[in-house]
Amino acid sequence: MSEKIATIEDVARHAGVSIATVSRALHKPDVVSETTREKVQTAITATGYTANVMARNLRLNRSGMILLLVPDIGNPFFSAILSGIEKGASQAGYNVLIGDTQNDPEREATYAAYLRSNQADAMILLNGRLPASLANAPANATPPVVVACERIPGCALPTVIIDNDEASFIANRHLTDLGHRRIAHVSGPSGNILTIDRVTGYRRALEAAGIAHDPSLIYRGDFSIDSGIAAGRALLGDPKTRPTAVSCASDGMAIGVIVAAKEYGLRIPQDVSVVGFDDIPHAAAYDPPITTVRQPRRRLGEQAITLLLDRLGSKGLHDSRDTGPVIIPTELIVRQSSGPCPTL
Amino acid sequence: MSEKIATIEDVARHAGVSIATVSRALHKPDVVSETTREKVQTAITATGYTANVMARNLRLNRSGMILLLVPDIGNPFFSAILSGIEKGASQAGYNVLIGDTQNDPEREATYAAYLRSNQADAMILLNGRLPASLANAPANATPPVVVACERIPGCALPTVIIDNDEASFIANRHLTDLGHRRIAHVSGPSGNILTIDRVTGYRRALEAAGIAHDPSLIYRGDFSIDSGIAAGRALLGDPKTRPTAVSCASDGMAIGVIVAAKEYGLRIPQDVSVVGFDDIPHAAAYDPPITTVRQPRRRLGEQAITLLLDRLGSKGLHDSRDTGPVIIPTELIVRQSSGPCPTL
Repeated sequence: MSEKIATIEDVARHAGVSIATVSRALHKPDVVSETTREKVQTAITATGYTANVMARNLRLNRSGMILLLVPDIGNPFFSAILSGIEKGASQAGYNVLIGDTQNDPEREATYAAYLRSNQADAMILLNGRLPASLANAPANATPPVVVACERIPGCALPTVIIDNDEASFIANRHLTDLGHRRIAHVSGPSGNILTIDRVTGYRRALEAAGIAHDPSLIYRGDFSIDSGIAAGRALLGDPKTRPTAVSCASDGMAIGVIVAAKEYGLRIPQDVSVVGFDDIPHAAAYDPPITTVRQPRRRLGEQAITLLLDRLGSKGLHDSRDTGPVIIPTELIVRQSSGPCPTL
Repeated sequence: MSEKIATIEDVARHAGVSIATVSRALHKPDVVSETTREKVQTAITATGYTANVMARNLRLNRSGMILLLVPDIGNPFFSAILSGIEKGASQAGYNVLIGDTQNDPEREATYAAYLRSNQADAMILLNGRLPASLANAPANATPPVVVACERIPGCALPTVIIDNDEASFIANRHLTDLGHRRIAHVSGPSGNILTIDRVTGYRRALEAAGIAHDPSLIYRGDFSIDSGIAAGRALLGDPKTRPTAVSCASDGMAIGVIVAAKEYGLRIPQDVSVVGFDDIPHAAAYDPPITTVRQPRRRLGEQAITLLLDRLGSKGLHDSRDTGPVIIPTELIVRQSSGPCPTL
């Protein structure tokens, strides 16, 4: 690269102010005077310093950053959701910063402080918990916050979710409709709101079909393939107690259950039906292709950022209105991993 | 929650300063006086305001944030790497913020400005490109930066990568060792450094086995399952030109090629051998389990953060030393998707 790129030093020299002042004007515009902001903006234009975005943010008195809190960036489930948020944010001229909370309240607080110190303009919570500083703040006192993916019980913030209870009900009713009576469920980790809602839907579907609840048929996984393999080995090893169908709270666990079923020489779906959740790309590509609940993850992300941008535009005027969560519809995708009950 | 959580307002009241001053003391400690910093720190301790991390950062005059730039957060390949970085950062008391650049130089510049304005203490580049402001800065003028995953040609910054050329050579030599002579390669997108290095390894392996190069056997994918299905349909449809083996630059594409092969009634590996790259959890769980190059993604992330923390500790003293990249070893994992050439 032969052309010299303008630095913050160049901007400071041109504006006749210190580098610290340029930095403050860019990142904490509320603490510098109008005159200084204008001088710095002129210098930015003249030097071509990272031209458009920063100048616009300076003009609009914002950081241009939206903060996303996720519970575990190691879980690829979030990729498509983040990508949907990213796209909408980018179109509106915002950049996104992602913070991985690892379910640690101290980390949640540290990230939330970014919002309160105006280093980010708004926040989307995908982690299922409100940072303590926000829980105690009056709704109008903080920048816009949207909850997505994992609902927060008792929280009145704008929320975008799927109906996990109903989606799980429909997946399990698909199995009772096929004549299955002995149906196991591989759930997510305990304490997780998705786990609770999907177990509820499973139990409702069995109850609706007049099947008595058997707690030994619920296996606690962690959404991973490995936990699905462990579940399959635990549930399918004994022919006397073996269920004829297994519903899983993730596609990864459904794949794991099928791996274990094949170890026992069981055919899918002739001997055991398996149903997943999410419809990740691997579900359709698996052998056999997996029946699952399609969760429109990208659309979920897009809807969350739309809601947030709406609030950013309206300067928080709607914050006190609670219109209930936005529910993104799911769809049962029937493929070859589920079939009629073999004992019929 | 019944206990009141301390807010920034409480800290300001206790310290007898404005909220803006507390915020500056927390996030831009270099622009406030020593006395103010001490007052704010005392108030933080007294009020219990997000206790440990922030107080320590204030004491150490740092933001406590490490910025990671990724080219596409929608690609789940990065999950395990980010998770490895996250773990090491957390143990050292740092939080991580992730920026998705979408290969856009303007976004790279915006994120890099976070580093230059001390809103982040250090940066890891997983996006294969140096932001313009860093490319022109003297090595000692910027906070520590480490390059991981995708090497940046001509860049002297500390770098952690795998040897993509050699790993691809070994995967393709596995196929020539099995007697295959007509071997196709499904690559990543054009312009990508991983694509270039893995195609080079493929061509070297064929050359080493005395096989003439046939450009019609290279299919350009984008690492996704769908592009693997398209590649399989393009390469395997015609029995007269069909290769007996296909090496792929990702496991997702290997799965896609197998899906397409099964559409044509081809058996894996009896009719066609397929080899992947990465060893994502889905590779071992597929039917058949997929032969692939194990890329230790979590370890790659851990090594990158170790290198960065080392530099943060030594205050950049090593910045001018170029000891060459750290190479994380890969391993060929032979499973059931590869076998002897059927025409032998």
